[in-house]
Amino acid sequence: MSEGPIFERAAALFASLQEAICAGLEELDGVGRFTSDPWERQGGGGGLSRVLAGGRVFEKAGVNWSKVEGELPAEFAAQIPGGGTAFSATGVSLVLHPGSPMVPTVHANFRFLAKGERAWFGGGSDLTPYYLFREDAAHFHRTWQDACAGHPGVADHGKFKAWCDDYFMLPHRGERRGVGGIFFDYLDGAGVEGGLDAVLAFVAGAGRAFLPAYRPIAARRSGEPYGERERQWQLVRRGRYVEFNLVYDRGTVFGLKTGGRIESVLMSLPPLCRWDYDPGDPPRGSREAELVHVLRNPVDWLGSDAGVE
Amino acid sequence: MSEGPIFERAAALFASLQEAICAGLEELDGVGRFTSDPWERQGGGGGLSRVLAGGRVFEKAGVNWSKVEGELPAEFAAQIPGGGTAFSATGVSLVLHPGSPMVPTVHANFRFLAKGERAWFGGGSDLTPYYLFREDAAHFHRTWQDACAGHPGVADHGKFKAWCDDYFMLPHRGERRGVGGIFFDYLDGAGVEGGLDAVLAFVAGAGRAFLPAYRPIAARRSGEPYGERERQWQLVRRGRYVEFNLVYDRGTVFGLKTGGRIESVLMSLPPLCRWDYDPGDPPRGSREAELVHVLRNPVDWLGSDAGVE
Repeated sequence: MSEGPIFERAAALFASLQEAICAGLEELDGVGRFTSDPWERQGGGGGLSRVLAGGRVFEKAGVNWSKVEGELPAEFAAQIPGGGTAFSATGVSLVLHPGSPMVPTVHANFRFLAKGERAWFGGGSDLTPYYLFREDAAHFHRTWQDACAGHPGVADHGKFKAWCDDYFMLPHRGERRGVGGIFFDYLDGAGVEGGLDAVLAFVAGAGRAFLPAYRPIAARRSGEPYGERERQWQLVRRGRYVEFNLVYDRGTVFGLKTGGRIESVLMSLPPLCRWDYDPGDPPRGSREAELVHVLRNPVDWLGSDAGVE
Repeated sequence: MSEGPIFERAAALFASLQEAICAGLEELDGVGRFTSDPWERQGGGGGLSRVLAGGRVFEKAGVNWSKVEGELPAEFAAQIPGGGTAFSATGVSLVLHPGSPMVPTVHANFRFLAKGERAWFGGGSDLTPYYLFREDAAHFHRTWQDACAGHPGVADHGKFKAWCDDYFMLPHRGERRGVGGIFFDYLDGAGVEGGLDAVLAFVAGAGRAFLPAYRPIAARRSGEPYGERERQWQLVRRGRYVEFNLVYDRGTVFGLKTGGRIESVLMSLPPLCRWDYDPGDPPRGSREAELVHVLRNPVDWLGSDAGVE
């Protein structure tokens, strides 16, 4: 991993993460298989979209890899660090929508960008349950805390956790989209021993932490019983996922407005969802209300007040 | 209608339109009834949201009236004609989602805004079929042409038709969201005999044209047979409606980012929809392909090439 330009090494890392994650998710699902859809980008580069639909665990799971180079529209270029409009970017990005409302939706993304004199890594992962299992949220956060722990100077778990709570926010709903995780950006290695190589090592570790963070949760919840009420609640909550991605998510909006490959950009949207008029808050004391409470009041899942025994 | 401040007269007009349209839609539906949900806005004014869900024809139909006054956030105020940040606005806005994929979704909106030294009307209506019936599109457009015809100087049907095709565009899909209709904005009465009063008269006529434009179409298509294939196509196309409203629609984005009443702002979203990964173009020669063709190539529905006998 320490040979060659960092852009090439990052791209190779993300490709290997895509392969390992897809293999791990197929093993978990047991039935569904990922398709492979390679694509090229007008203007330079391309990617590989992999999708599993109609599985035992996953209703729709997408894991996308891309490596692109080219010119940004001037308006967008001005919003991004580094001079000029030429850029190169590579990353792996996934959103998994399980069929069962007892299994949380999850997102992860790890990416490298270079523009002008600047180059940096970004990424993160966040968990969106439909029903709250406190020990699952704690396990997810603990895995990310461990992934950060070995990289002092690069990774600050407390900061990345708070950044995640801030980023995955729907201001118009007064809710976060889930129970959080980590989010980080603009990690350019400045002031860090090893510079960008040290950041790459952290990102590689975080990428490898994805399966341990999510797979045990999906495995143990995929057998939980549920009925029509829980399914309908899941469809309503998936609508909030759509609202976040189409209105606020920087990557999605960027992809839509800069001519990204639409099917890959919108791979994150759920297979089925619904919007009712003013469904109101769930009944007090219900499991649905318990979820909404933590979406409105972020929890320190590794603290003593997380309600995890 | 010619007494009192124009803001009050516009608000009264829009309230009466809401009442008449809801009554006409209940008559058409035959089963569903509109609920009435009055709301107040922090900072001044309020509105009345009316929703019919689970009817015979309509799966979800929302007709919203509002009359609000207050201060705009500076960032948004700068994007809107007229000085300062104080504004007043009133309007009626509707989106109807039928259960049958043979009955088109429809939107209409008529509004009045005043800010600083400026005051103007805007609005329009557009039709979003899932299956194309050319005579329906022609009827819809002809009704709007007639509504414009009596108001030379105020209403230019050719311009408003083209504006509609431009506005209801999803650039990332290379498609319009439907077969169009009319769209107009910033009608301030400048250079028009009668000024804003003449514009109000046109808007009143356009509002009264909504039921004649849409009701006959819904009535004659609500008995058309369809099956699971047509229903699934409708759910996919409804996803495009969500994409337009959350990414591009000025009113929706404005409402989300300025603290509008969320349930009213998002009343326009469909009850149920889906996103599949890369479903591709419908088979050549299919009815679905016929629709997509006209979404990509706007038609002059009142011209000789519209394919209407």
